[in-house]
Formats: sequence, structure tokens, C-alpha cells
Amino acid sequence: MSAQFTAIAAIAVRLARLSMIAACLAAGTLLPAAAQTDPLPSWNDTAPKKAILSFVEKVTKEGSADFVPVSERIAVFDNDGTLWPENPVPFQLAFASYEITRLLPDHPEWNDDPAIQAFKKGDLAALLADHARGLLRIVALTHAGMTTEEFDQRVKDWVAKDRHPRFERPYTACIYQPMLELLAYLRANGFQTWIVSGGGKDFMRVWSEDVYGIPPEQVVGSHGQLKFAMKDGKPTLTKTLDTVFVDDKEGKPVGIQQSIGRRPIAAFGNSDGDQAMIEYTTIDNPHPSFGLIVHHTDSEREYAYDAETKSSGKLVTALAEAKERGWTVVDMKADWKSVFPPQK
Amino acid sequence: MSAQFTAIAAIAVRLARLSMIAACLAAGTLLPAAAQTDPLPSWNDTAPKKAILSFVEKVTKEGSADFVPVSERIAVFDNDGTLWPENPVPFQLAFASYEITRLLPDHPEWNDDPAIQAFKKGDLAALLADHARGLLRIVALTHAGMTTEEFDQRVKDWVAKDRHPRFERPYTACIYQPMLELLAYLRANGFQTWIVSGGGKDFMRVWSEDVYGIPPEQVVGSHGQLKFAMKDGKPTLTKTLDTVFVDDKEGKPVGIQQSIGRRPIAAFGNSDGDQAMIEYTTIDNPHPSFGLIVHHTDSEREYAYDAETKSSGKLVTALAEAKERGWTVVDMKADWKSVFPPQK
Repeated sequence: MSAQFTAIAAIAVRLARLSMIAACLAAGTLLPAAAQTDPLPSWNDTAPKKAILSFVEKVTKEGSADFVPVSERIAVFDNDGTLWPENPVPFQLAFASYEITRLLPDHPEWNDDPAIQAFKKGDLAALLADHARGLLRIVALTHAGMTTEEFDQRVKDWVAKDRHPRFERPYTACIYQPMLELLAYLRANGFQTWIVSGGGKDFMRVWSEDVYGIPPEQVVGSHGQLKFAMKDGKPTLTKTLDTVFVDDKEGKPVGIQQSIGRRPIAAFGNSDGDQAMIEYTTIDNPHPSFGLIVHHTDSEREYAYDAETKSSGKLVTALAEAKERGWTVVDMKADWKSVFPPQK
Repeated sequence: MSAQFTAIAAIAVRLARLSMIAACLAAGTLLPAAAQTDPLPSWNDTAPKKAILSFVEKVTKEGSADFVPVSERIAVFDNDGTLWPENPVPFQLAFASYEITRLLPDHPEWNDDPAIQAFKKGDLAALLADHARGLLRIVALTHAGMTTEEFDQRVKDWVAKDRHPRFERPYTACIYQPMLELLAYLRANGFQTWIVSGGGKDFMRVWSEDVYGIPPEQVVGSHGQLKFAMKDGKPTLTKTLDTVFVDDKEGKPVGIQQSIGRRPIAAFGNSDGDQAMIEYTTIDNPHPSFGLIVHHTDSEREYAYDAETKSSGKLVTALAEAKERGWTVVDMKADWKSVFPPQK
């Protein structure tokens, strides 16, 4: 049986190769299709683009010492500040704010809640006081106590209705065009593209497939435990804040191992929160590996911050280590031809 | 850019279809290859085989009301008792036993350890007393405190050296041939095949790809938290027993949602521990769905147990629910032509 399947698979692979040749012939050339068009048109022809192309060519070249089999081609991407902005606030906080405002009329008792008051005033110091007690209360009110299906619907509604205050479009339309091209380019070269983010796993999964082409099973993020129960004869999973896992800093390599179980060969981030993930990917890896940091240098088209930031995304130690270890650093202003996709 | 990729993908899909037709022509027929040979040759032509074939045909038929898109074709499999035996003890316990014996000469102090003494005597009652304190001690000694790479190597060594006491072959050669065929058949029809087991995730990932063709990222199981640190300049992940997640009973739908983020459309198990997983898969699912229970009825070729078991795998309430809900029940003795693959 399995020998038959192997034989069929071998025939299919051979025919797939033939059909690639046929496609090239149809296109009037025997060069692979990818060589004809620029896979990263929104990247300037500066060092980062060259480094990406060179790494991918190296690990996909069969017979070379640097060749990495498809099953090991794992690429991991931070989300906030790497695939989409994190200003003026991380977008998940905008979702929480939208939800508090939406729910407030039904909860007059919240008007006496110090966490809600601090949140409405944008008083981050008050929210973070006493082990972030206020912030946890906001998270509890907006991210727990409902079923996973109810939560998904709330995120969908927010995506449909809320708009980014500066870019005046849905938050999910504020995504980096150069990174979309990079995701597609890596996948076209046999990579699995995973999100590994400090953001909420359940929050990202709702739109990650539509927006990035990343299916829910390839989204790693912070999460609390779920509770299974039959309710009115239907199976339900309710979100809780029990045993919360924070997928940030040293949590990122842990999240990678727990969800993927293989060491990535490429990691993309933008802050000190991504440093451990890029270390895990690039240090002592038996395969060739690649680390990249997006440096936010473009206040005109996006935002400029690193050591000083009003939101998340502090970048100091990871930038220093990038220089030491030869990780690629993207200067957003110099290296990206465009930042966002054209508006529809 | 993405329009170009879409166009290329569309051409590739069309050529792939052409090449399937070419393969059929080469084989002397225009029927799909799968129709020519029996995809489940180790299954007798009884009800379970018919139910499996009929379900897969139904959900893969484009244009039909029951069609399920490839991205939603998630199948989940319990491991112990469903893909391999769980007698005379769950195989992971055989691994723990092997490890204790191997490590004992270096740990004379263990001779005074009541947990070790109970374990050596096979005194399960003593191990399970006081909230399974003894068993947890055995798990701690054999499954925590080492790096993930060290643990992987220990499991590999056990696979290479230990033998099943009755079947006298490596434990990983004691796998159910009919289930191997089922896994391959589902994958050939666009399904993702996931393990969702009460067993240790890290334990199964070491051999799941070789043995079942299931990659580590599609193995869901019980696990403790990991700790990331740089040691001697190298990134390491150390196994701990912090915040242990038990992927059994109500934990299975939770593990599925945490790791997959989509509801399966097919679930395969053999015990009451799989009941919640099969409920979650088959009740109130917007897609057509399939539940199956392997009933161990074959003491001659394997083992016979259900309500009474000397190992894990108690089957009472799930068997009753199977009748109510129309889940398929495999009578191992009557429905399987062979149990294990031929020995090499």
C-alpha cells in the first residue's frame, strides 16, 4: 500500500516538474517563472533585499551544501511593528478600546471602575500599576468569558467598523506591502510562514488568513486557557485568563517549540521582544539561518522610533546584537519603496 | 505582485490537473488513480470501511452540498489504542521504565525512593496514591530537567533499543496497518492529519513523522512549560513540569483549538478519553463530520478490552454515545484484515 502511494507520489512529482517546464515554455522561456519578475517589487535594491534573495536562493538550491529540505524551511514573523504598525497604540488595544466603548452603555457599573476610568483617559501608568492590575481587568472584560465563536465575531465586527485614526482605513488594511511580498516569496519557495507574536493568538487568527495568507494553525501568540463544556447540547469552548502564556521575549522560542517543534531558519522582528526568537533561530543552528529586524525610521510614511517609543516596540539591545551577529536591519525609509498596499 | 502570483498559481493548478489526466492516460485509464486500487487494503469490506470511503467521497466532491474546502479538512487521531496499542502498558510508560533502569546505576539514592520502588514493582495503586504523587515523581525524573534536544535523543535511543514484550519488535513497529492506510488515504484527499493524544507531545514528535507521516507541528499532546536560556553561548530550551497541560478528555477539544484553531471534520479514537474530541467534531458542526471508535475485540492478534482494562483505554460512555449519534465503531477482529505491518 505505502509502496504504491510512494510510486504514485513519485510520478506526481515528476509530472509536476514537467508541468513547470511546460509553463516556462508557454511563457516563452526556460528560466523559472520567479526569475522573470521581481518577487519583492516594493523593496528598493538595497542590502536587505539582496540579503533576502541570496539567503532564499542558497537554501533552496538542490545539491548545494546549504540546501535545506522543504520540511525544515520554517520562517517566523513577529506581528506588531513587523507585519503591521503598533502606533499610535498596538492595534489589539484599539480593539479593546472599541469593545469597552461598545459595551459601556450596558454596564453602568463600569463608570465607577478605576481600570475603566484609567483606560478611557489613556492613563497607561495607572493601568500598569500594581502588576498591571488595571490592564488585566480590561483584558478580562474584552478577551475572556465568551465562547471562541463569540470572540471571533467581535473581532470581525471591529475589523469591519473601526478605522485607524491616522491612515483612515481598517486596521487590517494597514499592513506592510513589502512584508506581504516577502511572505508570498518565502511560501513560493517552500517555506512555512508562521506568526510568532506577543499579541493574542485568538485575536490574530480571525483575520490572519485573509490578510497575510497565514492559516490559524500557523499563528502562535499569547493566550489563556479554554474551557470545554456542552451547553444546550452544543459543544462550546469558553475563553478564560487561566494560565496565561505570554508569547514575548523568552516566551517566543518557547511558543515556537510548543507549536512548531522545529527550529526556524528565518526570523523577522522589530524590537527587543523579538531578540530571543532571532537568537534561537540564528545561533548554533545546524542549518543556514537568517535574522532580520525592521527599524522604524520613517515618520513621514509610518512612524520613527527605537529606544524611545510611545507604544510598544522598544529597540535597543536587539539592534546592538544585530550588528554583532550580522542580522539584516531594514531601514524602513531607505529600503522600502512603499509601506502600505494601495487603497482599494 | 500578488495578482501575478495568483495567475502563476492558477496556471500551476491547471497544469497539475493536466498532469493527473496524463498520469491516468499513462496508466491506461481516465479513472482517477485512487479508484483503481483499494486505498484501504487491510480493512475488510464491512461497514466501517464503507462509511470511511463514503464520507471522504462526499466531502471531496466539488460542487456538492457536502463539499468541504481543503483548508477545512482537518482529521484528528488519538494515539494510544487508536494508532498503536496501549498494552501491556501505555508505551510512554515503557519508555519511562527503560529510562529509570538506565539511569538507576548513577543514582543509588533512588533505591530509597518510594516512587521508584513502587514503579519497579509495578505497584500502580501506590504510584497513584496522594494525587498521583509517585507517578509525577517518575515523570519528573524521566521527562523534565533536560533540554528538548537531550530528551529527543533519549526517546530515539529507546526506540532503537527497547522491544515490545509480546510482539518482540520496536514499539514504533507496533502500529496499526489499517490506520496507516487511513492516514495516507485522508492525506491523499487533501486532509491534514493531526495527532491529539493524552500522551506527551515531545515524546510523540520524535518519531511521528517517520512512523505516521505526521510532522511535529501536527502533534498535539500533554506537555509542561519550557524554559529558554542561553547556555555556553547556545540557545537552549529546558523541559519543566510547570503548568502541565493534560490533553485528555475535555482537554482534547481545548488542545485542538489551541493548536489548530479550526474545528475538525473527522475524529478517530478508542476510549472515553476521546469522547469530548469526537463530540466537538461531530455535534453542531456546520460541515459534514465523521466520528470513529476503534473497539479492541481481538485478544488473538492484539488485545480485547473496553469497560475492563489493565492499562488505559476504558471504553464505556463513548461506546454508548457512538450508538446514539451514529459514530462508526470498528470491531478490530471483524473489520481489520491485518493489525500490524509485516515485519521487515
